[in-house]
Amino acid sequence: MKRVVIAGMGFGGLSAAKALAGSGLEVVMVDRHNYHLFQPLLYQVATAGLEQESIAYPIRALARRWRNTLFRLGEVTGVDFKAKRLLLEDGDISYDYLILAAGSRTNFFGRDDIERHAFDLKRLDQAEDLRNHVLLAFEEATRERDQERRRALLTFVIVGGGPTGVEFAGALRELVAHVLSRDYPEVRPEETRIILLEAASSLLSAMPPRLQGYALDRLRSMGVEVMLEARVSGADAEHVYLDGGETIPTHTLFWSAGVAAVELAGKLGVAQAGSGRVVVAPDLSIEGLREVFVIGDMACREQDGAPLPMLAPVASQEGRYVARAILAREQGGKLPAFRYRDKGTMATIGRNSAVATTHGLHFSGYPAWLVWLILHLYYLIGFRNRLLVLMNWAYYYWFHERQVRLITASARRSS
Amino acid sequence: MKRVVIAGMGFGGLSAAKALAGSGLEVVMVDRHNYHLFQPLLYQVATAGLEQESIAYPIRALARRWRNTLFRLGEVTGVDFKAKRLLLEDGDISYDYLILAAGSRTNFFGRDDIERHAFDLKRLDQAEDLRNHVLLAFEEATRERDQERRRALLTFVIVGGGPTGVEFAGALRELVAHVLSRDYPEVRPEETRIILLEAASSLLSAMPPRLQGYALDRLRSMGVEVMLEARVSGADAEHVYLDGGETIPTHTLFWSAGVAAVELAGKLGVAQAGSGRVVVAPDLSIEGLREVFVIGDMACREQDGAPLPMLAPVASQEGRYVARAILAREQGGKLPAFRYRDKGTMATIGRNSAVATTHGLHFSGYPAWLVWLILHLYYLIGFRNRLLVLMNWAYYYWFHERQVRLITASARRSS
Repeated sequence: MKRVVIAGMGFGGLSAAKALAGSGLEVVMVDRHNYHLFQPLLYQVATAGLEQESIAYPIRALARRWRNTLFRLGEVTGVDFKAKRLLLEDGDISYDYLILAAGSRTNFFGRDDIERHAFDLKRLDQAEDLRNHVLLAFEEATRERDQERRRALLTFVIVGGGPTGVEFAGALRELVAHVLSRDYPEVRPEETRIILLEAASSLLSAMPPRLQGYALDRLRSMGVEVMLEARVSGADAEHVYLDGGETIPTHTLFWSAGVAAVELAGKLGVAQAGSGRVVVAPDLSIEGLREVFVIGDMACREQDGAPLPMLAPVASQEGRYVARAILAREQGGKLPAFRYRDKGTMATIGRNSAVATTHGLHFSGYPAWLVWLILHLYYLIGFRNRLLVLMNWAYYYWFHERQVRLITASARRSS
Repeated sequence: MKRVVIAGMGFGGLSAAKALAGSGLEVVMVDRHNYHLFQPLLYQVATAGLEQESIAYPIRALARRWRNTLFRLGEVTGVDFKAKRLLLEDGDISYDYLILAAGSRTNFFGRDDIERHAFDLKRLDQAEDLRNHVLLAFEEATRERDQERRRALLTFVIVGGGPTGVEFAGALRELVAHVLSRDYPEVRPEETRIILLEAASSLLSAMPPRLQGYALDRLRSMGVEVMLEARVSGADAEHVYLDGGETIPTHTLFWSAGVAAVELAGKLGVAQAGSGRVVVAPDLSIEGLREVFVIGDMACREQDGAPLPMLAPVASQEGRYVARAILAREQGGKLPAFRYRDKGTMATIGRNSAVATTHGLHFSGYPAWLVWLILHLYYLIGFRNRLLVLMNWAYYYWFHERQVRLITASARRSS
């Protein structure tokens, strides 16, 4: 039986594996974690709205149901294209077809000082760390006598006005306004500042101007200080420095101002485009390596003159496409070039409030929020995870209460 | 307003705080964590049955509801009895009354080699670490070519046949038999060994002989290797050594063979009994320090010729008692000496299977299991936690599936 090895079980790897399962090929799923992570809800773990377990799904639970699939836990270190072997830290795996779907990492643009002091949200443990850090900042503030330090502890700076920055800012503001304000009678509401910095002149650059304006107004009316055309020039443990000389005293810097392909992309010895993404042929294989495909955030495919965005729907569609492309080749056939069908994008801002665009239609407010909710539940894997998330959302909606405000490790990270 | 400071928000501290809330005294609740932990279910977190968040409840959520109560996060380092101040790592708090309820720690009886290599279950992060470790051992076993090392990875040794050891052994056996056996087709069921070591000649020493026998039979029929009159003489990263010369190759040693009062008990400069517990007067105060009370696992109170056991119900009753004792004193009165009313003890072994004894009656099997279930749900704090735990139990009961089999951090601990 020929073997397809998939490196990375994010949205791209998952949809490829699902489409290949039981097709007559052996599928080996490789990931550094033993679970698929639903990254779009990481920010809700970081803001005490969801248990970390509710957005992760064990890959072996999928392998059980999918015929001829196997799971291998491991860190991918490279590929031996000649020998057709995927190299892991502790072994290697031979392949007939290889699908590289290892995703992206946060891009600090080489700014070591920022990377050292900033939080970012790519992994489950980072979301838990960030939640611990925010709650611990409030605990420390309650007993801090120095007023300036106290203000800095209660100031949270978010860099990047894309969907992640907007969603995190809105969720953090709601956490503070509705939950922590009652938990910490020692802290006056006006002492807490949430500052969202965006280098461009509008939030959500991929959205139409009307929705950009809606998001900006909504965030500001909720109490988030949005600063447009603001660029970060540096950071240390207690400050964020802006271009133009302004300094913001803060103990919490959240960075969502850029993503780049994982480091693996640079180790392959193949052509890379912007953000380190691997240049792929129209069928998503690497030029000259017909049996190797790259999908998702790791791959750069241009369509209509622009590179496809690094988004979950792109990865999922690419995953399904390469699965079909491999099966077609096995039968001597060939698929037409991959084309991404944009079904729209969305971002939630807060309770009853979101923006969404699909097929040229623009939604905001309650309808967009409801659609966001239903789609996120739909794309979560596992009945139990859906139930858990729905229960958490309903609970928060009715009782304005977020239960998961636990400091689960006191100092795994110090900053 | 006079101030009562409570150090430790386990079962004892919690029941004292609840009874004192809104009574006209100010109550300051101190804990090193920002949540009350329902320790009796820690073993279910360690065996992938429950999310860690479902057995923890934020103390500030209680402080919100309870009048005149405050929470202070902090590590207690000692007490200045003369100045009436509780000393914390980062400050101190003056008190009129002090309730010390800081609980117990695992007792390794000075065996450093065992302490270094063993897992124990007192804190939430330890339960998560143990779950990660068990799952990681299975992952490693699937790719281990050395047969002896593979056997050692799949051998789990539990020391101590008390309720914790019995419950953990049963839950781990069920995890392996019903869940991991399907997750890991690479592992044959007979390769996994779960060994429960008990130094005495029976399990569950506090139970009547009939129930001890039931527990032993049940565990053995489930596939747990129970070794009675077996003493551990040492351990390293890959072995457990027994008195008498036997060596068990294993990468996982779980220690539940003893508890002792927390180290704080030894720093007070007052009389200590066995296991470092503080000797208390009939009203649970310290002799000569009338305004200082010690309750729960930290305190040693004899009743009918034997020290009261280190159990949650003892701590809870003591907490309520000292609250009433303080209020009585404030009104110039005095309570009769504390007496513990034993309502019974129980331990669950597996699905539909538990042992319980109450008021001279002994139960085993399904009725005991059902009572165990209902009581544990009842004593959990928070509607949401109850719902979450019930949902997990129902899910497991019907689908034989434990969702939380996630390796959430690859190597926070290496052993």
